[in-house]
Amino acid sequence: MDSIEVLEDAAAAPRRRERGGREARRNGPVTAPHLSVPYIVRNIPTYDILGEENLLKIEAAADRILAEVGIEFRDDPVALDLWNAAGATVEGLLVRFEPGMLREILKSAPASFTQHARNPAHNVEIGGKSVIFAPAYGSPFVMDLDRGRRYGTIEDFRNFIKLGQSSPWLHHSGGTICEPVDVPVNKRHLEMVYSHLKYSDRGFMGSVTSESRAEESIDMARIVFGRDFVDRNCVILGNVNVNSPLVWDGTMTNALRAYARANQAAVIVPFILGGAMGPVTNAGAIAQALGETMAGCALTQLERKGAPVIFGNFLSSMSLRSGSPTFGTPEPAIGSMVIGQLARRLNLPLRCAGNFTNSKLPDAQAMNEGTMSMLSAVHCGANFILHSAGFLDGLLSMSYEKFVMDADFCGALHSYLAGVVVDDNSLAIDAFLEVGAGKHFLGCDHTMKNYQTAFWDTTINDNEPFEKWEAAGRTDAATRANARWKQMLADYVAPPLDVATDDALVDFMEQKKAAMADAWY
Amino acid sequence: MDSIEVLEDAAAAPRRRERGGREARRNGPVTAPHLSVPYIVRNIPTYDILGEENLLKIEAAADRILAEVGIEFRDDPVALDLWNAAGATVEGLLVRFEPGMLREILKSAPASFTQHARNPAHNVEIGGKSVIFAPAYGSPFVMDLDRGRRYGTIEDFRNFIKLGQSSPWLHHSGGTICEPVDVPVNKRHLEMVYSHLKYSDRGFMGSVTSESRAEESIDMARIVFGRDFVDRNCVILGNVNVNSPLVWDGTMTNALRAYARANQAAVIVPFILGGAMGPVTNAGAIAQALGETMAGCALTQLERKGAPVIFGNFLSSMSLRSGSPTFGTPEPAIGSMVIGQLARRLNLPLRCAGNFTNSKLPDAQAMNEGTMSMLSAVHCGANFILHSAGFLDGLLSMSYEKFVMDADFCGALHSYLAGVVVDDNSLAIDAFLEVGAGKHFLGCDHTMKNYQTAFWDTTINDNEPFEKWEAAGRTDAATRANARWKQMLADYVAPPLDVATDDALVDFMEQKKAAMADAWY
Repeated sequence: MDSIEVLEDAAAAPRRRERGGREARRNGPVTAPHLSVPYIVRNIPTYDILGEENLLKIEAAADRILAEVGIEFRDDPVALDLWNAAGATVEGLLVRFEPGMLREILKSAPASFTQHARNPAHNVEIGGKSVIFAPAYGSPFVMDLDRGRRYGTIEDFRNFIKLGQSSPWLHHSGGTICEPVDVPVNKRHLEMVYSHLKYSDRGFMGSVTSESRAEESIDMARIVFGRDFVDRNCVILGNVNVNSPLVWDGTMTNALRAYARANQAAVIVPFILGGAMGPVTNAGAIAQALGETMAGCALTQLERKGAPVIFGNFLSSMSLRSGSPTFGTPEPAIGSMVIGQLARRLNLPLRCAGNFTNSKLPDAQAMNEGTMSMLSAVHCGANFILHSAGFLDGLLSMSYEKFVMDADFCGALHSYLAGVVVDDNSLAIDAFLEVGAGKHFLGCDHTMKNYQTAFWDTTINDNEPFEKWEAAGRTDAATRANARWKQMLADYVAPPLDVATDDALVDFMEQKKAAMADAWY
Repeated sequence: MDSIEVLEDAAAAPRRRERGGREARRNGPVTAPHLSVPYIVRNIPTYDILGEENLLKIEAAADRILAEVGIEFRDDPVALDLWNAAGATVEGLLVRFEPGMLREILKSAPASFTQHARNPAHNVEIGGKSVIFAPAYGSPFVMDLDRGRRYGTIEDFRNFIKLGQSSPWLHHSGGTICEPVDVPVNKRHLEMVYSHLKYSDRGFMGSVTSESRAEESIDMARIVFGRDFVDRNCVILGNVNVNSPLVWDGTMTNALRAYARANQAAVIVPFILGGAMGPVTNAGAIAQALGETMAGCALTQLERKGAPVIFGNFLSSMSLRSGSPTFGTPEPAIGSMVIGQLARRLNLPLRCAGNFTNSKLPDAQAMNEGTMSMLSAVHCGANFILHSAGFLDGLLSMSYEKFVMDADFCGALHSYLAGVVVDDNSLAIDAFLEVGAGKHFLGCDHTMKNYQTAFWDTTINDNEPFEKWEAAGRTDAATRANARWKQMLADYVAPPLDVATDDALVDFMEQKKAAMADAWY
């Protein structure tokens, strides 16, 4: 048909917006470039599933847990002093909180803040209607179809930063994308922060495995952004976990306080596998998460009033047959909607986990569980979605193939979150009057005017007719993803970093390393 | 750990509810049997993304399309007469409708009705908060991992009925699950309806490919349910498609009227690939769908006031590079939310399409696109979700492996749609008081009381640790699904059907067949 040919010709050389055009050409096909943005501003409401009465019950349960059971703060006497001064009841390591106390403290935390990137075009607003996709975090292993599962190395770590930087659908470079196991444990944070700053120009996350590593992560950011700027602006995030149930370890609270002290944003995340670290029933696990997270968020405000902080969520379930943790299952997916409602009632930015799965391969299971989990994160109103790309094997492995599949799905979500625009152009009355009953819309004015920005277009999923797909080699999505990440790495071009800054970062890193013997655990 | 062992032992022999228990033993592992129900009553709200103002704009656009462009009704003079008598403007084949006219006519259609199954335990309520999962519909090809893609046969057709009947997570036997291409075209409806009635005891759909085939489908239902019962109750559905844009073909309207005349429910479904059969912009395609569907639904009421009818939705997009239809993409997924809102404003039951994909394999793409599409269907409030299981290859192939994967996901959605229950038990305050900070919940009273009904448990997805998965053969989900459908077919037991009824059905079928020469197109 003539009109299809017209569309094809035009689509073969789509006009690209200035921003992103150069990257697009460098890194192979970028379809739907009009959707590429530094971060998404959602144009659909959040999916609120509980009414006021039930939310109040959960909040009341959290208040009872905080007041009657309390939270232990281990190995951090300063935290205990801060709680004592704030009026909490401290007995030994156990801290108990009068109902309402933490909510009052949390009023000083900002509802939204900017994380600055070293390329200001990649600054992200965290809070409100913003949605930011960041890679998965924390796997000891990496996987690809050629070499299978193996421990991650600093080369893998850099590769994932490069893949993220090359994707127009991620907005943030993440943190411990995989553990670089070939680097001594006590020096990893230096290499990781340096790699983020060197190979990406987006926002990133620093170390939380000790107070000094957190501080050194922030120090490296100060080299790039300047000390005064960092004191006034958020340039680095630190992701700290509750030792659920109801325990904050000193390693985490010391790191949390280091970030807050520097006016940088801690992300406060419980880790609740229902039935193990919390009740098997969703409402109880949610109440617990609320209590644990409020306590962590409030501690940032006691350390430095007004410091940015992010309310984190990591609900999960477990297999009742094996006791294994499960990921991407329905209960955490629906439970996250409630966490979102609760975070908004606290007026805090929300972090959720994205593309969760327990699959060991980038297969149907991986994307079934991952897609359900990722949609839950965008529906619940998460502003910062960690684990958006690469997660396999119950967070034990980063997968190269899954990374690019997930990044492609993040692209699709750019269109999804744009919602349904209703205006004269989108209602297209003139097109109906032009085309009439029983004719096609392929060549009509309205189609020609709108088709380039009409639909998301994937680079991984195959939409060809069966015969064309067969002739092209009958590939599955994983095979196409394998080719895609290799091409992206081959095409990667590092964002410019001025030599003096680079040198200063390397000097800092080398000095710190020279002062430490290698530690491997 | 002792407590995990306790859980494992108990979970190995879960108590099963009486209902479903026998089937469960017959058909292999049914995990989470407490979730199995004849149909789901949703316990979460619909996901409403547009406000009143924008909905009114879309409704006004639909009204303008109906009034100013109109809809052609081809090859059905009776339909034109009905429209004329109802006050529409009929000029040749073109029918135009004053704003509000169709809404007024639609007031006689029931907001909800029961489709009776031959086993009353499998009756489904269609409307309100009900959610019913039915298999995919209409593929000429079938696929499995062993034999690849081939034309469907009556044996495949029966196999899919058996797989559906064996799944505790589907609620309806569907209709043309695949085309039985080895049966002459003019006799297929007889074999298909007979197979549904013989191998399943759930609700099903009849033929719509001609008025007489529709009537014969209904006649066969009358043999099972009795003529009077059928005149008063819905026992069969007929799925009729608009020839979008804005054309109703006589084949469809004659079938539609046959179902309505018999007080059976027609499902009225536009087929809009944005940019081809409708505008490339979502709002316009939605307005068109609303207009086309209202017209079809209203025609059922002109044929028989009060007949049950279902508002159908089938939005899709197309690849701008190849012109191919695409499935499981973000624009139809988000657009369906709006269709749901519009259907509820008409107070009509809603049908959506479920597990859409263009993938040619049961791979990551299939479940990425399928999961997004399926979640869209459950979020938008669809009561009857066709294409819930088996869909591959852009509706050209039914896949055995995808069928059981999708059915498993339907199971997960039973837990998802149960939402978050908030009550004293689920809030688990006593458990927190019992366990305290820093201990685990594995063996506590609350866990022991609730764990068997706490979480969905899959039969396809793998939740074992990597090493166990590796030792078990490193299977992907498709390989496990391949073993699963074979086991399900091997274990299948037909539901009882009394011999006299069976004989009467066979007699009817043989008589009709004997009166026709084979037609192959």
